[in-house]
Amino acid sequence: MQVFFSDVQMRHAPREFLVRGQWQPCPEKPERATALKAALLAAGHRVELPPAGHRAAIAAVHDHRYLAFLETAHARWRELPGASTTVIPNIHPNGRGVGYPHSVVGQAGYHMADTACPLDGDSLDAILASADCAIAAAKSVLAGARSAYALCRPPGHHAFADMAGGFCYLNNSAIAAQILRGQYGKVAIVDVDLHHGNGTQGIFYDRGDVLTVSVHADPANFYPFFWGHAGETGEGAGKGANLNLPLPLGSGDDAFLAALDLGLAKVRSFGAEALVVALGLDAFAGDPFAGLAVTEDGFRRIAGKLATLQLPSVLVQEGGYLCPELGRNLVAFLEGFGGA
Amino acid sequence: MQVFFSDVQMRHAPREFLVRGQWQPCPEKPERATALKAALLAAGHRVELPPAGHRAAIAAVHDHRYLAFLETAHARWRELPGASTTVIPNIHPNGRGVGYPHSVVGQAGYHMADTACPLDGDSLDAILASADCAIAAAKSVLAGARSAYALCRPPGHHAFADMAGGFCYLNNSAIAAQILRGQYGKVAIVDVDLHHGNGTQGIFYDRGDVLTVSVHADPANFYPFFWGHAGETGEGAGKGANLNLPLPLGSGDDAFLAALDLGLAKVRSFGAEALVVALGLDAFAGDPFAGLAVTEDGFRRIAGKLATLQLPSVLVQEGGYLCPELGRNLVAFLEGFGGA
Repeated sequence: MQVFFSDVQMRHAPREFLVRGQWQPCPEKPERATALKAALLAAGHRVELPPAGHRAAIAAVHDHRYLAFLETAHARWRELPGASTTVIPNIHPNGRGVGYPHSVVGQAGYHMADTACPLDGDSLDAILASADCAIAAAKSVLAGARSAYALCRPPGHHAFADMAGGFCYLNNSAIAAQILRGQYGKVAIVDVDLHHGNGTQGIFYDRGDVLTVSVHADPANFYPFFWGHAGETGEGAGKGANLNLPLPLGSGDDAFLAALDLGLAKVRSFGAEALVVALGLDAFAGDPFAGLAVTEDGFRRIAGKLATLQLPSVLVQEGGYLCPELGRNLVAFLEGFGGA
Repeated sequence: MQVFFSDVQMRHAPREFLVRGQWQPCPEKPERATALKAALLAAGHRVELPPAGHRAAIAAVHDHRYLAFLETAHARWRELPGASTTVIPNIHPNGRGVGYPHSVVGQAGYHMADTACPLDGDSLDAILASADCAIAAAKSVLAGARSAYALCRPPGHHAFADMAGGFCYLNNSAIAAQILRGQYGKVAIVDVDLHHGNGTQGIFYDRGDVLTVSVHADPANFYPFFWGHAGETGEGAGKGANLNLPLPLGSGDDAFLAALDLGLAKVRSFGAEALVVALGLDAFAGDPFAGLAVTEDGFRRIAGKLATLQLPSVLVQEGGYLCPELGRNLVAFLEGFGGA
């Protein structure tokens, strides 16, 4: 399978994020990519550098004010007296009906859902390079490849059109899906990350041409809290084109696969002509987030089920955090998908 | 003038808040009340204890889920593994259209606009006692007093119906105005705090029976960033019943008084029958927030202008932070109002 990654993605290296009122070490580290890439190379995959500079593909999904914020925020933040070295929001609006803020402090709260998406001076290069991987993989599929894998890092599925969150800035899976839409009338995104793909859901919530399916830990007591409930089914033209399959905390392979079956039935009835897999590996039993209990074999079986759709497919890396099995789980997934 | 205060209000003593990515000492300290009360006593005012327990008056303004959150949040937060000693939000929804979160982490982000409204185990008692002062002052006016002053602390004007923010939890000024509405058909709130009274605006934004006027530092580069612009004029039945008068940073007495004249003209044309003054003292030139440059004499003149409305009036303490002149500015204001 074609694999895309750029070392530029390593430049984003956030140190901490605020959770439950305390600074914690940020688990979304460059070393994740190191481990994933090493496992891919050891398994015989060839890693290609994605071409850079696809602003139009990004702007097709993201809000122009948000993109301007990502480009200018760090420099403006550093001019504030007493500011931290990274952009971290501290005040948020209660809706989109407010006046768009002039100050970078206000813009940070407008464009960042949480404290888990800090920006430093090197972040943007890595964020764009991560999106470049998804764009390259999608274009590869458009050019005829049956499937391609984008080693996106930072991840993307918590990013809305105008809002970062949960280690995510640009929604790589959504960008890939939008590119596939250039050739295919109906595209499905199936998100198997431990966490609900709230940004992806938000981007396509009122659209009937892109189906969003997410299997994830029940948000009743898990990030992202506000989104990912079964009752969220889309709106307007997108009514019925969003399917959330929350699982009780601690669920293992069988529960995950049973939920996935429901998701795949939806993909089939929707009539998807192409697929994006939002490929998180943090549903793993040994992942530091400890939300679900999927095994290495479970990932192989999840991938095998997704492969039965027999659709042109872009696999986009989402979460999955440092543990000894991280790389092995990715290789098992790609084997299961049939792209080894 | 009748003055209400309870020592229970001293129990809320937040230590820090996150601003521009850094923990800073919280300026909304119990010592503010100590200074204000001492100045009142020295000037010959008699300080009365407000009766406690007016949940109905609070529930007339605030959302029941928010009140349940204030009552339960700290105990639930402390049960979270690794949580801080105070409730501090770290993830926020981008609107009110999301599913109401089950987890206290989600509820904190839903009900707290920013990191400047921490809750500890003693906060609620103080918050309720602060509201009790506003309630007692409003009832005193309903009972025939020409005016009364509530030494509210913590303050209230950044609190929305369902959201804390900016050191504020219950909107004492709004609660007082709602009580006055029991007797008067039209009530005006004039907010002279340095910061825009965004919570008060939000509570009455779609109502035509309570006029909200705020003179404050321009939110383009000042808290609360999203609210307080001149274009926010109310909606629905409240269209035209909200007047924001933002001032350039550094503005002094003359600019403030000129803006206030516009506000008072609006109060007159609105036909207000009773008045709430959201009495911040942080527009003072020597206030630590350093946003505007009002003088002690300026406060006397601001109060004198408000008194020309000749309306039954509840004066509710909002901001104003520790500096040697804090108490003197309050006494000057009350003198100017004619309640000495």
